[in-house]
Amino acid sequence: MGRWEPNARARLERAALALFAERGYDETTVAEIADRAGLTKSTFFRHFADKREVLFGGQDMLLELFSNAIRSAPPSATTTSCLAAALESAAVAFTTERHDLAEQRRAVIAANPELHERELLKRARFSSAMAEALRARGTDETTARLAAEIGMLAFSTTYARWAAPDNEQSFAELADMTLRELQARAIALGADATARV
Amino acid sequence: MGRWEPNARARLERAALALFAERGYDETTVAEIADRAGLTKSTFFRHFADKREVLFGGQDMLLELFSNAIRSAPPSATTTSCLAAALESAAVAFTTERHDLAEQRRAVIAANPELHERELLKRARFSSAMAEALRARGTDETTARLAAEIGMLAFSTTYARWAAPDNEQSFAELADMTLRELQARAIALGADATARV
Repeated sequence: MGRWEPNARARLERAALALFAERGYDETTVAEIADRAGLTKSTFFRHFADKREVLFGGQDMLLELFSNAIRSAPPSATTTSCLAAALESAAVAFTTERHDLAEQRRAVIAANPELHERELLKRARFSSAMAEALRARGTDETTARLAAEIGMLAFSTTYARWAAPDNEQSFAELADMTLRELQARAIALGADATARV
Repeated sequence: MGRWEPNARARLERAALALFAERGYDETTVAEIADRAGLTKSTFFRHFADKREVLFGGQDMLLELFSNAIRSAPPSATTTSCLAAALESAAVAFTTERHDLAEQRRAVIAANPELHERELLKRARFSSAMAEALRARGTDETTARLAAEIGMLAFSTTYARWAAPDNEQSFAELADMTLRELQARAIALGADATARV
């Protein structure tokens, strides 16, 4: 078997998700994943550090997309435009091919408490990275943290809507809609606060 | 040594935090904690399931305080009043004695990546519990999730301010101030959103 295999990464991902769904995540070995994909273990390790990375491997790329989009927004951009830019920049990662695997990925994570914790920690990392990028633009601490939580919630809600089996809208369209929805709620909660004073 | 020891829980907590700070969390054993407190291992296990619980033991109580405060708010209460009630209800946990240990606790958690992850997961649990309590009141899904993130951020910011070594304000005062600050920021982000449209 040659060193280079066409679509090896995608084949390994499909094989891994199918096996996780059939046998359970903990019960699946890297050797079995490689075998199912018709590839070798060493090919697997050229693409992923371990089987967990099959599920969470895109994390660092997304984190960088979010940060870069916020850092490179024009100085005049509002905080919410920065969030919109961050979500838009992530859209490249959410292709049709990825959509087909999303439901399997969700089910595997939901079935395993340790993976579910990993997913929650991923969200906390995204939120920290967004807050840091906003602070680097001169956004004050409290606004940066609040906006990052809103940005993270917009991302996770958009992702869930996009990943739904019957969804046909693009990630970018859903991101725009979700962010506007959250902003309208922030206004409502603000007005509610004024009423409380 | 008798079965009942006065202030055993507090003594064990102080002993544990002192040892974690001196030797590191991973290097400290339950036997050493009990010994330093002048108590037995079995007394330790009557109060804590393991040494991690010394740091995170209050979690379930806080979670219940938050949920109950939101669930028992009058039907006419606004979403932000529910958050205010949740934070106020937590104030009982943040006594002067607890304040004296807070800085040590923070340092131990900051020095250990695994404990830091535990702390982030605790926040995610709090946020889920608040969202669930709001949904139980009939708050719509998006508002419930957004308000829960704001509530969680208000809690963690209040806690950090309260735990600061030079702080002399009560948790309840700081909670009120922090929540108002976040609400003002939510209004500003809302206005910023209107500008984007």
